[in-house]
Amino acid sequence: MANCLVAQSGGPTSVINATLAGVVKANQLNPIYTTVYGGLNGIEGILQERMVDLTNMSEDENRILRQTPSSALGSCRYKLKRTNIADFEKLIQVMEKYDIETLFYIGGNDSMDTVYALSEYAEKKGITNRRFVGCPKTVDNDLMVTDHCPGYASAAKFIATTALQTWLDFNVYTRQEVFVLETMGRDAGWLAASAALSGVVDLVVLPEIPFDKEVFLEEVRKSMAEKNKCYIVVSEGARYADGTYLAAAEAKNDGFGHAVLGGAANAIRDMILDSGASSRVKVQDLSTAQRCHATEQSLVDVEESFKLGMSAHMRSMDKAFTGQMVGVKRKPGADYDVEFFATAASNVANHVKNFPVEWALPNYRGVTQDAIDYMKPLIQGSPVVLMDGGLPAFVKPYYKR
Amino acid sequence: MANCLVAQSGGPTSVINATLAGVVKANQLNPIYTTVYGGLNGIEGILQERMVDLTNMSEDENRILRQTPSSALGSCRYKLKRTNIADFEKLIQVMEKYDIETLFYIGGNDSMDTVYALSEYAEKKGITNRRFVGCPKTVDNDLMVTDHCPGYASAAKFIATTALQTWLDFNVYTRQEVFVLETMGRDAGWLAASAALSGVVDLVVLPEIPFDKEVFLEEVRKSMAEKNKCYIVVSEGARYADGTYLAAAEAKNDGFGHAVLGGAANAIRDMILDSGASSRVKVQDLSTAQRCHATEQSLVDVEESFKLGMSAHMRSMDKAFTGQMVGVKRKPGADYDVEFFATAASNVANHVKNFPVEWALPNYRGVTQDAIDYMKPLIQGSPVVLMDGGLPAFVKPYYKR
Repeated sequence: MANCLVAQSGGPTSVINATLAGVVKANQLNPIYTTVYGGLNGIEGILQERMVDLTNMSEDENRILRQTPSSALGSCRYKLKRTNIADFEKLIQVMEKYDIETLFYIGGNDSMDTVYALSEYAEKKGITNRRFVGCPKTVDNDLMVTDHCPGYASAAKFIATTALQTWLDFNVYTRQEVFVLETMGRDAGWLAASAALSGVVDLVVLPEIPFDKEVFLEEVRKSMAEKNKCYIVVSEGARYADGTYLAAAEAKNDGFGHAVLGGAANAIRDMILDSGASSRVKVQDLSTAQRCHATEQSLVDVEESFKLGMSAHMRSMDKAFTGQMVGVKRKPGADYDVEFFATAASNVANHVKNFPVEWALPNYRGVTQDAIDYMKPLIQGSPVVLMDGGLPAFVKPYYKR
Repeated sequence: MANCLVAQSGGPTSVINATLAGVVKANQLNPIYTTVYGGLNGIEGILQERMVDLTNMSEDENRILRQTPSSALGSCRYKLKRTNIADFEKLIQVMEKYDIETLFYIGGNDSMDTVYALSEYAEKKGITNRRFVGCPKTVDNDLMVTDHCPGYASAAKFIATTALQTWLDFNVYTRQEVFVLETMGRDAGWLAASAALSGVVDLVVLPEIPFDKEVFLEEVRKSMAEKNKCYIVVSEGARYADGTYLAAAEAKNDGFGHAVLGGAANAIRDMILDSGASSRVKVQDLSTAQRCHATEQSLVDVEESFKLGMSAHMRSMDKAFTGQMVGVKRKPGADYDVEFFATAASNVANHVKNFPVEWALPNYRGVTQDAIDYMKPLIQGSPVVLMDGGLPAFVKPYYKR
């Protein structure tokens, strides 16, 4: 029997480790691989033969791993270039040396391209006993083919919960005030849109809708006239029709030569203050916290993420299973349910699934019921969080052991 | 039988409504007041006779109120000036009109001064049937006499949890990187110090310790040399020996005449980049979220806050009970336990309890075991959060009904 290798890449999420836990658990239920290796820091570490043995992970550790945010194996931004044959050769050598038949690569767009490139290379070289399987993750929810990406829902739940709570905070004074919440989403508005689940957001600015300052400010003025308050959510990737980011317009030179990225929310704050639409604007940039706040995972998300890892492992019993990504398909019907399926990684690599512009209401006035109906089932349920001395119990990162 | 009035003031917290719920519940258990009025927007709204009747709040609403962050009655920054006799007269008139014997005022420093001033005024005027009782709340934990302030522990728990989770996120890449987490705390370092509960913080910058840029940068360099990473927590009120805020040094004019407060964390980011101590610095400003993230309340905090409201109500049976604040005293012994007590509001008003400088380790290297021993019991336990469609169930603010 051969071995398998699991690794993680790209930006972490709150449930990325659940997929890892799923692969490990599946192999305990049906040990088709002798050893389950964890590759440290993605392809970057695998090329350096940095690996740990995860085969006999205890159920207790597996359970805590599922609630631990961020890539427990470490991550990398290293992109395999098709022109860099040395990397491909080295990777195959490592796989041969450790008798690794299957590499499960958990990641986003770039990682699916890595799966695609490696399977393509193996096929070209006639290497049939080294296989490559992709498992999607990304808070951005911007991968094609799959209904949604593990990681998105938990970030969405944290964003909507924080929107609701900061909205309660910002309303307590009678004074005139605007609140601007900034979310991630460089190219896709899924995260910003998720704030609308709170039901309290007045305006949402998405990257998919070219930003029109005058139309936007008019809407702010309307809210202020009506209730003296305006709660705004903006995606970091919000941009003008010419492609200029709002954040870029805000970027300042600090006098020492490096530009200070001002942020989309700060840009909106400044234009509101300058226009006189409100004399007071508060900003909250959710920044890193939104993709690692695993203490408020969505139960749907973490369970799907775990099952996706299991599904990938189980499908890999098929010796022809390579160059594939396992995805999630939403079943038709009123009750939310999904099935898992596989698609060629090439269908996913190098594409971006945008938030549908037809799901955005005119004049930044939020999102349609269709958008809510899509997002709402994803944030349902809350796992019991195992605690340790008042703080959540997390596994120690494998790259620190 | 006369009535009572409860109101909230100052910046909200995650458990401020639990004190309100405690007063209401105590009066249901022993109806010493005919009506429990809720005053909207603190003194500001009471002067306008804006009140709601909370007497018969259902147990279900009371339970949800306890987990609802931010002042459900609204808040104000209105400060009663002792020279403005008209306000004092008006307030007594309102109390007479509605037959209000006792005003419970939930708030921080300024609110305790309001309780003090009102009771002083009543005494001077020989008014014996209008009484004033303070209930402390503040995330800043800077009130005197009481061991700690309701609201602090839940903010501390959120900060430590977020520190732990963002630390896991920021460590996944092998690259050189600094992370800077900014907390509230204009004059007191309690919140910044609470991040140390996570056990992962390298450096903590408190307002109580005059900031020495060279010493600080040397410590950053040491961390970078040792592990290529440095996790820093800074209080918004961090300042140089001459009193200048780090945030002020960072403040920029945006070209339209209004200064942009750069934030203490941004100031630290810039000095690290400029010094070359690290080429990459990520910033997370916890901003509003840290004082309203009630989905992660500390069980100790929310229960104490509720009991404090009950205690204030029960003590007010004593017709001489006025001008007092109810506080929390930590009992001696290894097991954490508290008792409630009363102190003159004048002992609390207009003072600030700083984070003890002897609890700070030299060279920004975190806090002592004494500090951990003080903070750790406060963040224990997690209440079950009642959910509603994937998001926490919260009461609709009374000022919006």
